[in-house]
Amino acid sequence: MTARFQSFDDTADRAASGPRIATLRAELARRGLDGFIVPRADRFQNEYVPPSDERLSWLTGFSGSAGTAIVLADRAALFVDGRYTLQAREQVDTGQFEIVQVTETPPHQWIETTLREGQKLGYDPWLHTVEGAERLAKACAAVGASLVPAEPNPVDAVWADRPPAPLGAVVTHEQKFAGEPADSVRDILAGLADIREPGAFESDLKALGAAHRNVRLDAAGAADAIARLVAAGGGKVRRGPDPIALMKAVKNATEVAGARTAHRRDGAAVTRFLAWLDREAPAGRLTEIDAVEALEDFRRDTGVLKDISFPTISGFGPNGAIVHYRVTTRTNRVIAPDGIFLIDSGAQYEDGTTDITRTVATGQPSEEMRDRFTRVLKGHIAISRAIFPEGTTGAQLDSFARAHLWAAGLDFDHGTGHGVGSYLSVHEGPARISKLGTTALKPGMILSNEPGYYKAGTYGIRIENLVLVVEAPAVAGAEKPLRAFETLTLAPIDRRLIAPAAMTPDEIAWLDRYHADVRAELSPQLDDATRAWLARATAPLV
Amino acid sequence: MTARFQSFDDTADRAASGPRIATLRAELARRGLDGFIVPRADRFQNEYVPPSDERLSWLTGFSGSAGTAIVLADRAALFVDGRYTLQAREQVDTGQFEIVQVTETPPHQWIETTLREGQKLGYDPWLHTVEGAERLAKACAAVGASLVPAEPNPVDAVWADRPPAPLGAVVTHEQKFAGEPADSVRDILAGLADIREPGAFESDLKALGAAHRNVRLDAAGAADAIARLVAAGGGKVRRGPDPIALMKAVKNATEVAGARTAHRRDGAAVTRFLAWLDREAPAGRLTEIDAVEALEDFRRDTGVLKDISFPTISGFGPNGAIVHYRVTTRTNRVIAPDGIFLIDSGAQYEDGTTDITRTVATGQPSEEMRDRFTRVLKGHIAISRAIFPEGTTGAQLDSFARAHLWAAGLDFDHGTGHGVGSYLSVHEGPARISKLGTTALKPGMILSNEPGYYKAGTYGIRIENLVLVVEAPAVAGAEKPLRAFETLTLAPIDRRLIAPAAMTPDEIAWLDRYHADVRAELSPQLDDATRAWLARATAPLV
Repeated sequence: MTARFQSFDDTADRAASGPRIATLRAELARRGLDGFIVPRADRFQNEYVPPSDERLSWLTGFSGSAGTAIVLADRAALFVDGRYTLQAREQVDTGQFEIVQVTETPPHQWIETTLREGQKLGYDPWLHTVEGAERLAKACAAVGASLVPAEPNPVDAVWADRPPAPLGAVVTHEQKFAGEPADSVRDILAGLADIREPGAFESDLKALGAAHRNVRLDAAGAADAIARLVAAGGGKVRRGPDPIALMKAVKNATEVAGARTAHRRDGAAVTRFLAWLDREAPAGRLTEIDAVEALEDFRRDTGVLKDISFPTISGFGPNGAIVHYRVTTRTNRVIAPDGIFLIDSGAQYEDGTTDITRTVATGQPSEEMRDRFTRVLKGHIAISRAIFPEGTTGAQLDSFARAHLWAAGLDFDHGTGHGVGSYLSVHEGPARISKLGTTALKPGMILSNEPGYYKAGTYGIRIENLVLVVEAPAVAGAEKPLRAFETLTLAPIDRRLIAPAAMTPDEIAWLDRYHADVRAELSPQLDDATRAWLARATAPLV
Repeated sequence: MTARFQSFDDTADRAASGPRIATLRAELARRGLDGFIVPRADRFQNEYVPPSDERLSWLTGFSGSAGTAIVLADRAALFVDGRYTLQAREQVDTGQFEIVQVTETPPHQWIETTLREGQKLGYDPWLHTVEGAERLAKACAAVGASLVPAEPNPVDAVWADRPPAPLGAVVTHEQKFAGEPADSVRDILAGLADIREPGAFESDLKALGAAHRNVRLDAAGAADAIARLVAAGGGKVRRGPDPIALMKAVKNATEVAGARTAHRRDGAAVTRFLAWLDREAPAGRLTEIDAVEALEDFRRDTGVLKDISFPTISGFGPNGAIVHYRVTTRTNRVIAPDGIFLIDSGAQYEDGTTDITRTVATGQPSEEMRDRFTRVLKGHIAISRAIFPEGTTGAQLDSFARAHLWAAGLDFDHGTGHGVGSYLSVHEGPARISKLGTTALKPGMILSNEPGYYKAGTYGIRIENLVLVVEAPAVAGAEKPLRAFETLTLAPIDRRLIAPAAMTPDEIAWLDRYHADVRAELSPQLDDATRAWLARATAPLV
């Protein structure tokens, strides 16, 4: 068996947190600190943190992708958002940690009602952004306490078997995939990007502060430690958005062509998976983990899979309703032949990053399921077909994905789409389709289009394709340059879950046309049996 | 002839601005000021300013509803937005004032490139909000200049024939219209609202600052002078949104009932006007002013008209394309029998404020006109029919009004809707339907629904009804409380401008149902001839 990218261990160790928090408290006392903040973060503010930075999980047992703990001498709290409240209660020793809903009581607010005058709350300046640290400092100051840097990180001091930091080789992304030579990035950064040892970073930052009066820094994204080192060198931090983010978000012609190629390749792998699932699921023996492994194997068969984009979300029935579900050996469910199975996955190829969700009926779907799926599909199609003037933001489009759910008193509690990198992070700013998406959508941007519906404890539905912002075809009499989306993702959408009577002729035409494209693009890559399956799966709706 | 509310004088006096600016400069020199800022504002930051506060118009000749002038010793600039650029060039002596597009170069940016170190720029702290004054002060500081209060206002010192301030009697809005006793407002303000002489305001503010350590103030809405007086009294200004704005925006049951009554009454007056227009326009002798006067007279016939909500926008052909057009004796056009006439008007009744726009074909409309009108109507209907969960903001709905225009490469450069007061300002915050509308829509709020399309130099289209946010009827299986709009405005929408083939069955059903409601509600109030006209105007579309 191949070593796969995804593992399914449940790393939570509830019993360990008692002794661990005790040693941490002793360390804090030794340093004269009254408390310490433990965010889930590394020094690069990455979305996915390496094992060596999983301090929050080590200390609390909580393995979710977002959270913060504050440990004081006599009490401790774990702050998580709504999607993780249940998971936190299962994984964490609530005798040690109170679980706090972060949207109701964020850490800074908890600090204001909990810390006492004169107390010192430690933080690791590498693990908080400039703005994040400011918010905490302000909360401490409001009660006469103070936020003080604690370096080296006190958790590291007591974490005996801490894994080593990742040590991968630096690889140049070839120009045939990137579209530009690696030097061009160095040119932009004007000499700053000569590759140096990590240890030189701190002294370089001080030198930068000394050499330049003003150093621009993205206060919402850069570690507070960076600002402190620039200031220590005598520099003044000027705040401004990271200019590289927008450059990355707008893909060049090579990246766009690569994305199309990657999606044709990935679509064939996903289609082989969907055909396999249809064949195997009726026996009622497949599990969520089986599905993840099979899908990774189909992608590996392409011969060019570099990694998965993120841990596959593979949820049957009630597990499908957990938006950020990650299957473990403990939660693994059989994909029974009588429900809905949701699978959200992606691949990293050198020519592009993919991200696709399909929701599949494994038996006769109920009328309610078909109604919900059709509403989600109508929202998905509304985004796909949107035509909008230059300058339009994702916030202005987001509601098109929701209107048909709203009409039934339903909604989904996440954005409609996120930006996607090119052989980079599958979640990439600054553009997104969400009510918070204030960045104008520019041709070359790649975003996800993923409305959903989640019936807690019962089932989940999500239909996700990646779309590319393009110039819309010219319209006679148009007064403004128009933009539209080109759908990149190629894989059938389960017709068994659609209520055709609820679809408009335009929506049916979109679906049939999409399925015809899927069939035309993927068939040449498939074996006879899968090709025949795809022909059935992409037949006209009515 | 009755004295009407609206006048049509062109008050612009281009020749006067030379001598006036000269006397202002002499006054500034006498006070040691290098310049002075003249906004169009009164000390209450009202939208409509009384003649005694029309300093900008007096100084520059510009009579638009928004603008700012800065006068320096050797140059002067008038800042206006896109809708007023043309008008400003016509009204203002451009030898005295350069006309600056405010969205391209706002005053604070102009200051940064124009003022010199050590210069003193005067401002009247009563005419700028706290935030506005801060922005100007920051710009001055950036170039080593300073923003200094200039009281009394230097313009007033040289404005020889300045009209007296308005001196109307204080009238209590009766409880049968307001739904609450006047005392309840006083209770909210806890003793602050005892009616006092205007002259006592300044000393009261100082006393307030002295008596209370913290004084809450809406920095985006309150005059900078108020913050200065609180501070002079020793108080500390705490910034926060005005708590009364949201209370006013959510109408109580009496106000809602009053709004319905007012709209039935107003709809009958507007319908009499539309029937009259249809009868008279073919002769080709009516002018835009005739239409304004006739409409005001039909409203006056109700016997309870207290005022018009705002100067009626009455634009035929090219004038209809000017979004904030105000007809004067100089611009007045004949309503020819071969085009489109747009009329946007409103009435103030004690039980409610109305605001309605109708666009009428006075001849055989072109195919393009019908296409554009139909797209605007489809957007209007999309807002009218929207169903959305509790907590949804106007920003989330705005695009529904635009999607059909976007598809043709068209748009309109204003928000879809504004809040409306109850026998108060026709433009009322905080809720609005626009991409800037971040306030959740609550049952009881009244907003306008007014998408449009403007073909510069040719014609303008706008369809405006007022809508009331209501609880939507229960839907089986709904997981969230739903909101919807109830349309308050009652008057026919010109069927001659609609292309039925471009309408969906749902849209046609909405229109026919709306027209049936209009007919049922208004017919009993109309004479036979108008009733017959209304029956034709509200016949089913196809």
